[in-house]
Amino acid sequence: MRTYYCGHLRSVNIGETVTLCGWVDRYRDHGGVVFLDLRDRSGLVQIISDPERTPNSYSLSTSVRNEYVLRITGRVSQRPEESINPKIPGGDIEVYADEIEILNGLGKPLPFLVSSNDTESVREELRLKYRYLDLRRERMTRNLQLRHEVIKAMRRFLEDQEHFIEVETPILTRSTPEGARDYLVPSRVNPGEWFALPQSPQLFKQMLMVSGFDRYYQIARCFRDEDLRADRQPEFTQLDMEMSFMSQEEVLALNENLVCHIFKTVKNIDLPRPFPRMTYSEAMERYGSDKPDTRFGLELADVSDLLKDSGFKVFSAAIKSGGIVKILPIPGGNDLISNVQIKPGGDLFKEATEAGAKGLAYIRVKADGQIDTIGAIKDNLSDDQKAEILQRTNAKAGDLLLFGAGDVATVNKTLDRLRLVIGNRLGLIDPNQINLLWVTDFPMFEWNQDEKRLEAIHHPFTSPHPDDINDLKTARAQAYDLVLNGTEIGGGSLRIYQREIQEKVFDAIGLSYGGSLQ
Amino acid sequence: MRTYYCGHLRSVNIGETVTLCGWVDRYRDHGGVVFLDLRDRSGLVQIISDPERTPNSYSLSTSVRNEYVLRITGRVSQRPEESINPKIPGGDIEVYADEIEILNGLGKPLPFLVSSNDTESVREELRLKYRYLDLRRERMTRNLQLRHEVIKAMRRFLEDQEHFIEVETPILTRSTPEGARDYLVPSRVNPGEWFALPQSPQLFKQMLMVSGFDRYYQIARCFRDEDLRADRQPEFTQLDMEMSFMSQEEVLALNENLVCHIFKTVKNIDLPRPFPRMTYSEAMERYGSDKPDTRFGLELADVSDLLKDSGFKVFSAAIKSGGIVKILPIPGGNDLISNVQIKPGGDLFKEATEAGAKGLAYIRVKADGQIDTIGAIKDNLSDDQKAEILQRTNAKAGDLLLFGAGDVATVNKTLDRLRLVIGNRLGLIDPNQINLLWVTDFPMFEWNQDEKRLEAIHHPFTSPHPDDINDLKTARAQAYDLVLNGTEIGGGSLRIYQREIQEKVFDAIGLSYGGSLQ
Repeated sequence: MRTYYCGHLRSVNIGETVTLCGWVDRYRDHGGVVFLDLRDRSGLVQIISDPERTPNSYSLSTSVRNEYVLRITGRVSQRPEESINPKIPGGDIEVYADEIEILNGLGKPLPFLVSSNDTESVREELRLKYRYLDLRRERMTRNLQLRHEVIKAMRRFLEDQEHFIEVETPILTRSTPEGARDYLVPSRVNPGEWFALPQSPQLFKQMLMVSGFDRYYQIARCFRDEDLRADRQPEFTQLDMEMSFMSQEEVLALNENLVCHIFKTVKNIDLPRPFPRMTYSEAMERYGSDKPDTRFGLELADVSDLLKDSGFKVFSAAIKSGGIVKILPIPGGNDLISNVQIKPGGDLFKEATEAGAKGLAYIRVKADGQIDTIGAIKDNLSDDQKAEILQRTNAKAGDLLLFGAGDVATVNKTLDRLRLVIGNRLGLIDPNQINLLWVTDFPMFEWNQDEKRLEAIHHPFTSPHPDDINDLKTARAQAYDLVLNGTEIGGGSLRIYQREIQEKVFDAIGLSYGGSLQ
Repeated sequence: MRTYYCGHLRSVNIGETVTLCGWVDRYRDHGGVVFLDLRDRSGLVQIISDPERTPNSYSLSTSVRNEYVLRITGRVSQRPEESINPKIPGGDIEVYADEIEILNGLGKPLPFLVSSNDTESVREELRLKYRYLDLRRERMTRNLQLRHEVIKAMRRFLEDQEHFIEVETPILTRSTPEGARDYLVPSRVNPGEWFALPQSPQLFKQMLMVSGFDRYYQIARCFRDEDLRADRQPEFTQLDMEMSFMSQEEVLALNENLVCHIFKTVKNIDLPRPFPRMTYSEAMERYGSDKPDTRFGLELADVSDLLKDSGFKVFSAAIKSGGIVKILPIPGGNDLISNVQIKPGGDLFKEATEAGAKGLAYIRVKADGQIDTIGAIKDNLSDDQKAEILQRTNAKAGDLLLFGAGDVATVNKTLDRLRLVIGNRLGLIDPNQINLLWVTDFPMFEWNQDEKRLEAIHHPFTSPHPDDINDLKTARAQAYDLVLNGTEIGGGSLRIYQREIQEKVFDAIGLSYGGSLQ
């Protein structure tokens, strides 16, 4: 029915008679000459109809409106010099429409403009109601196309360069005792019994490894009946992989090559390798987060040792009960951030309390090297302590220091949140920068205070670091996350494959086992 | 952890020191020399350990058993002339194991042998219980690998040669009023409401077409809560495609190219193009089936016109009430099929009645051209009728003619079933033959006797044949199936895209429409 996509025509086609199908992106009647931008998935082409050069199509062309679906046959021509558009591919040609067929018109006015020249913002409810029109918009089309290109790049890398086999695992499965909630499907054939939708293909891929498939991947649908979050929906898709006979170094290298391949293929961006690495403990120390955005500074400083005997009870009491005091230093913050923002009712105060903090202490460094803060802090700081604080935070005149004091988790959560908010507000983040970071050496366990026992952070099948095998309580796991600009985009772990080690880990968390493990 | 796959080693690697990981396929101790076949997904390699050449590994090698998981480092060597196995790739080399590491052993005896040299048949229940061992077997590994290769070939053809975009559509969707049953998923967030799992991505792909994506594909998971059939499970996977701006001819050509690409890429088989075509009515006439296996003859002959006034009431009554009489001729059937098989209690009689027939009339053609049958048939056939029957069935001495009489559907179903059973029994089917066939021109509607109205056979959005638009009752649809050796492997239809035609079709089936169509 057609010979070309609209967006594929170039000056090399001049003189050809072509047939195109698509949607009218823009209709203009310039005093007896009709100009149409015809659009399909590939892009646009300018169509012309006038009474002299295209008498057959002219009358019909005047009845056309935006978003009509047309089939057009015509001759590709060079545009006149003055109407060449160098900004778009094919901007130097146009098509004189010898024939126009209206495949479909419109029954009623459009609820919103679709044309890619349209910059109005449309209410989300309206976009979702007319999703078939919304998806015609250039940005939406590009999003779906980009997703396709990324997945295609993944598949080709894994299949062609790394011997992976794609295996489809079931969606109607058994319920498993994982943490997050299962979606359940009642069985008609066996009343009272239920299928579960998989939270991940974890068990299936392990079985494939035991079966010798050794390199499995799947673009896998996962389901979790959790409340909605910005980055998680009830169903989501992940590149799911599993490999046998690989060390952690080999896994990281393969994944770096995969990510580099995707960026190169899809965006023509050369990412430097190897990706930087940071241990979990370093990331928590410096950024208060296990997925730090390293595109900007504002690194935290721990001053717990300095202030453990401070007369300011907020600090010393926090430390005495096992907590910490950390500082988020903001260069030039004195001018950029007001006391109103920091004090009760202020926006930064609000961010801090939403993260769990009780308040937000601060120090302002003045031009003369003196500090400006509340009396209770000032009166309880020795000159040595003050000098040490300024040195650890690398603070200079004009800087603002924000304090977090309390239990470790709350302090880190608070200062991480403030750091990101302030980094964004102050424009410290280059949106075009791409920072990839491995966070490694996650701890194996955390202490469950309620149950008075160790709990696996990842899952109890994660392999401990070989150097830590004799003191599992504080052991590091062979687990790692890949972080892109502060977002966790991937992660994994090595799995225990030896019975003795699995038994030790079960022992450590007080889990009994036995014949059922076999 | 390894440098090669086992099955990738060749004589070009002789002299190299390699590291391999895999499973012990077979263990043999030949008087002080240990031979192991080490297996991974790629194949096997022979490993040797003996006290003289590999003293480091020898002691450990004697403790190894079948299905142990090993890591082996050793030198690739030329096999002695007398032990070269020309049947397997790499059969001219072996690896002397300098080091063996047992990654895992066995805690108890294997429930069945896994080795690819094993030809015993294992109970299905046992295979499913130990699925991780079952999948290690060569045939199962090959099946999953083949599936992967076929899907890979599909993707590459559609993406690289035909501009398709892969779009993932939701699994948690709304219930739709299609024929087959939906699986339902209760919503936790909105009690009393349910998601449905999609029976196909039909609605989503239509929306993508309206949105201008114009060529969509997905390896799509579909769900139907129907009772199990040999070729349908609760969840199944299909290559799901949709295209805009395509004629039926273009759709068929694209799909032929796709199928040819798959056979060529995966099996190196060149299929001839174009594929043969047969209309639905011809297929029903000649084979009694809309998915005929054309690898063998046994074509049906309609003799309704001859026998409509027959004194044998079984025939004439069937025809008078709108039914038919057809013959399945079996060359040489006199010797091959006994009366016991055809008469009540016989296996062929049973096949016929299971298909809905009341009985199974027959004629045997004798050496002198006379016929042998029950009196009621013989007495009511004129010489002309007899001659015409023999001519239409191309029957010769020794042939057997089986009759079906009754309503059209039952006669066709019965003779189709008998034809397949007999074709298989008599060895008329070459298992290596690949017969692809388009069945086209399906009817738009069938008459629903209960509701006294026309019903859409495919669905009411299927486009009628343009020549039949003025008499929709008997119209052919632009719908087609692809049949491989008697199995429907694909199908599709052109969809109505014009409101006027959709309204006509709704009129024909007595469906009201209106504003909701817009």
